[in-house]
Amino acid sequence: VSGPAIILVEPQLGENIGTSARAMLNCGLDDLRLVQPRDGWPNAKALSAASGADRVVETARVFDSLGAAIADLTRVYATTARPRDMDKSVVAPREAAAQLRAFESRGERVGVLFGPERRGLSNDDITLADAVIEVPLNPAYRSLNLAQAVLIVAYEWIMAAPPPLQPRGGYAPTPTTKAELLGLFDHLEAELDACGFLFPPDKRPSMVRNLRNMLGRGNLSEQEVRTLRGVISGLANLGRTRRADKE
Amino acid sequence: VSGPAIILVEPQLGENIGTSARAMLNCGLDDLRLVQPRDGWPNAKALSAASGADRVVETARVFDSLGAAIADLTRVYATTARPRDMDKSVVAPREAAAQLRAFESRGERVGVLFGPERRGLSNDDITLADAVIEVPLNPAYRSLNLAQAVLIVAYEWIMAAPPPLQPRGGYAPTPTTKAELLGLFDHLEAELDACGFLFPPDKRPSMVRNLRNMLGRGNLSEQEVRTLRGVISGLANLGRTRRADKE
Repeated sequence: VSGPAIILVEPQLGENIGTSARAMLNCGLDDLRLVQPRDGWPNAKALSAASGADRVVETARVFDSLGAAIADLTRVYATTARPRDMDKSVVAPREAAAQLRAFESRGERVGVLFGPERRGLSNDDITLADAVIEVPLNPAYRSLNLAQAVLIVAYEWIMAAPPPLQPRGGYAPTPTTKAELLGLFDHLEAELDACGFLFPPDKRPSMVRNLRNMLGRGNLSEQEVRTLRGVISGLANLGRTRRADKE
Repeated sequence: VSGPAIILVEPQLGENIGTSARAMLNCGLDDLRLVQPRDGWPNAKALSAASGADRVVETARVFDSLGAAIADLTRVYATTARPRDMDKSVVAPREAAAQLRAFESRGERVGVLFGPERRGLSNDDITLADAVIEVPLNPAYRSLNLAQAVLIVAYEWIMAAPPPLQPRGGYAPTPTTKAELLGLFDHLEAELDACGFLFPPDKRPSMVRNLRNMLGRGNLSEQEVRTLRGVISGLANLGRTRRADKE
């Protein structure tokens, strides 16, 4: 497999799934993932709209949650049509393609998220991403069809030559998978619920998003995620118990 | 008027005319011309597929011949999916956009031709063009939907002089002072000493360095440092409560 996974979150129309598959294959991509497609799966309309890109539709994988869909990836970008007030770096598709190629050349597995036709990705979805892709279109008419958004991202991917120089030196960890990162989030949030930190309840969602954005921004390595989980356990006094159990 | 005219030669499906209009307006183009649309004109399906780009469809002009459609233009490029054996210069969409912008800046009126869905432009049509645009896609699957071909050409046009991203969003925190960051380190390390996490003593210096590197990398804001200190206090109090319960 090479090139980013294309992850459609709660896509509504089968036709758009099919034409997205077609846009992917046009640009040499074939890892299509669907999170809770509205009309179920398989979808005859998706297959007929794929016209020639059937294989991409047939091998698409369906997931119950965005977390499951990105579990094996180490770097995920989220597409948005309208500006969001989030602590994420915002890049155009061309820049995104160059960055994702650089990550892939270091052995990372990358992916791009696309939201439902009507409302786009939720802020909670975007929180799980490392950066946001915004297409610098006509400010007076930004509404892109789903497959056309997929096409622009995929087209920039195929047009981007692999980076001439391998990035080296500096900070180059073994990147963590999204599954490990989500495990860290769950662990932290469970303990923060236990100690009453995530209070009052109506503030909880935004507090959780802020913590996830903060932890996600650090580009943590596998080892660091393990260390942070140890820190959480240690502070919550589970660490000593576990050490005692081991001895 | 600015930007190339988009000329659809004998388009077959109204839906494709509508989605092409949408792709044009996404990229700031509005001069749509149709040569002998198969299903006549006006076309209700074109209008409904335009969703928001109605004006482009409503002001589209219909012509009996390609010659009439391009009569007022001085420079015309033809798109093809498959290579043609013609004495024409062949360029990719990015190069074409740069060239067409250069012509326009000298006062020329430019346009791009797109053929019918099933068979593309005829050789006679291409003969009327000054150059050929070929999209360098996956050689194993080059068949682009009409509106997606229009999108790529129009997208490269707008990207050749993109509207500026509105200055907002992105990650631009109030940066924390080093004193605050060191206060966070001291707080965390004191609590980790208290719960026995930084053990054994000969490992302590490298564990502390790893934690400090990790926290320093995230480029934390003042607010985030305060949040993290709250997290540490919350978890540490939880730990003390649990220890007290056990005793």
